[in-house]
Amino acid sequence: MSERLIAVYEVPGPSAEAEKTARAIAFEETVEVPFEFPLPSRIREEIVGRVGALSPVAGGRFRVEIDFPAALAGGRIGALLNLVFGNASIWPGVRLVDLRFPDSFLASFSGPNFGVAGLRALSGVHGRPLLATALKPMGSTEVELAESAAAFARGGGDIVKDDQNIVDGSFSAFQSRVSRIAEAVSRHNCLYFPHLSGPQEELEERLRFVLGQGLKGVLICPAIVGLDTMRSLASKRKAVFMAHPAYSGAFYAERSHGIEHSLYLATFMRLAGADITVFPNAGGRFAFTSEECRAIAERGRTPLGGLAPIFPAPGGGMNLDNTGAMAKDFGTDAIWLVGGRLLMHPGGPEAGARAFRDKMPA
Amino acid sequence: MSERLIAVYEVPGPSAEAEKTARAIAFEETVEVPFEFPLPSRIREEIVGRVGALSPVAGGRFRVEIDFPAALAGGRIGALLNLVFGNASIWPGVRLVDLRFPDSFLASFSGPNFGVAGLRALSGVHGRPLLATALKPMGSTEVELAESAAAFARGGGDIVKDDQNIVDGSFSAFQSRVSRIAEAVSRHNCLYFPHLSGPQEELEERLRFVLGQGLKGVLICPAIVGLDTMRSLASKRKAVFMAHPAYSGAFYAERSHGIEHSLYLATFMRLAGADITVFPNAGGRFAFTSEECRAIAERGRTPLGGLAPIFPAPGGGMNLDNTGAMAKDFGTDAIWLVGGRLLMHPGGPEAGARAFRDKMPA
Repeated sequence: MSERLIAVYEVPGPSAEAEKTARAIAFEETVEVPFEFPLPSRIREEIVGRVGALSPVAGGRFRVEIDFPAALAGGRIGALLNLVFGNASIWPGVRLVDLRFPDSFLASFSGPNFGVAGLRALSGVHGRPLLATALKPMGSTEVELAESAAAFARGGGDIVKDDQNIVDGSFSAFQSRVSRIAEAVSRHNCLYFPHLSGPQEELEERLRFVLGQGLKGVLICPAIVGLDTMRSLASKRKAVFMAHPAYSGAFYAERSHGIEHSLYLATFMRLAGADITVFPNAGGRFAFTSEECRAIAERGRTPLGGLAPIFPAPGGGMNLDNTGAMAKDFGTDAIWLVGGRLLMHPGGPEAGARAFRDKMPA
Repeated sequence: MSERLIAVYEVPGPSAEAEKTARAIAFEETVEVPFEFPLPSRIREEIVGRVGALSPVAGGRFRVEIDFPAALAGGRIGALLNLVFGNASIWPGVRLVDLRFPDSFLASFSGPNFGVAGLRALSGVHGRPLLATALKPMGSTEVELAESAAAFARGGGDIVKDDQNIVDGSFSAFQSRVSRIAEAVSRHNCLYFPHLSGPQEELEERLRFVLGQGLKGVLICPAIVGLDTMRSLASKRKAVFMAHPAYSGAFYAERSHGIEHSLYLATFMRLAGADITVFPNAGGRFAFTSEECRAIAERGRTPLGGLAPIFPAPGGGMNLDNTGAMAKDFGTDAIWLVGGRLLMHPGGPEAGARAFRDKMPA
């Protein structure tokens, strides 16, 4: 029990209240008994989280470190989530803002199959950001989607993914649609990532089908299928996993509680085997700040045991006028995910892709 | 596309802003393109959500119904979550408060394996609430946990479950601990639900092991393993699933966004195959109100297609002085989940169980 995992929280003040909350988290996330429970000293000393010093932060809140025996997370995602944000998730005002893992904990995780270097090798694109788009709108026929995909690829697009809203009525409908789009982009140097969804018991079979088509990866919504489901799939099949944030916003969208954007969207995704993390860019339809977006990119590449760095894929509300900010905020190792504005280009998706490619730093 | 699924949201005002947000949700959750995108009229009319009338609610917020083609959720949990709270989860201030499903949608779900009637038949307990406890604290030896379980069972306890924090270092450690506790309660009329956790790829094997011990069910954290993972396991094995809310609090703990407590903790759990939903009782360590707790119980038993009603299991901070409120709030068809206070009874868990059983309505 000597190796420790450190979880950093922000909690409501004033300081006496913050200290009480911190102590409550340390108990609740481990022994889950009242303070006055007659705990054996072995358990009190070795199992209960240890509360560090409080420091004031903005908004009358306090930041506090709680350190736990790393063994309580057992090198597994489920146990980790339970330990650092299980019952703590139910307290209003508690936000998990950072985690520091011992290397022994990280050693149990394989992390991304490809990461930045692997995906660059796979796509053959070096020295510039990658350009991605989403196949939409929902309700289009498979022929229409395949035509959009081919046009985007002709225009120089690097990655086309299914919109996460696309629903196939059955496995056979999924097979038909995916094979048609795969065929449409196959003559170009463009990756296609179908959305891996459907009943839990079909996910692995669908992934096998996708890879059997010669495709290299999938789009997936880890908050919906479960973070450890993605980790398990990634450990079984050497595919690219492009993580989409659908349904995960409840964790970070309100800054007064939950989990810090970058911790959830970069660190958690990377632990769970994502190669790419999609998130809403600042200035788009969602309320992420530039700082939050840059922190996601930063946490995706900062050293994390032996886990490969991953690509940030900011998207949403991007247009030809804000590509300069994109280049500045995210640098070269980023994926520009451009949906509506690219598809709406007067010249169609081919001209749209070309226009965005022209705006990229060389 | 004629059958409709109705999602009800509360969004920030003033009314012009609320209307804009509602329209944005209707677009974002379906076609996900800018308003000015040249949508074919077929898609605009048949796919995009339809926004109903706004009505003011407390706090300057507005309630609005959006109805979607039910086919877009495809009778699946993942597609449903994506449709009604996928990208909408990322907007601050949006709360999903109700869902109304057509019967055809619900017909694709098997729901709880046992539900209230099935669990009563299994336990042989009729006409009164069931008494449950949690095995804790984490760090106890398996002998200590087995002794607590046996004492609780001797005192008249009906269900003993693992604390969701308990971590077994390996499958073999899990097997050893679970078989010892199962043996300890086997001479009594008391169910034991071990915590089904661990790597995703081991869950089914662990469940088979549990049932092979003659046990009838498990504790599970659906927010961690994924709601559809629980649904899939429940469809494969006729076990009781006791759903624990760990890690799910981010969805409901702040009332300004997320998903209404009772919708998440009762309706979602029931759709995903839970027989029992555990939640923090009002007046305990968490900030649920009595109304929110009663709404969970109510939504657990209200007609929902052919899905069986489920047991509410309020827990947390219960003591011998508030049993009257429990009886009043939840009636007979409830599970009283008493942890610390029962284990701390001066006479031990046996006397603790007896004391709480004595407080139950006959």
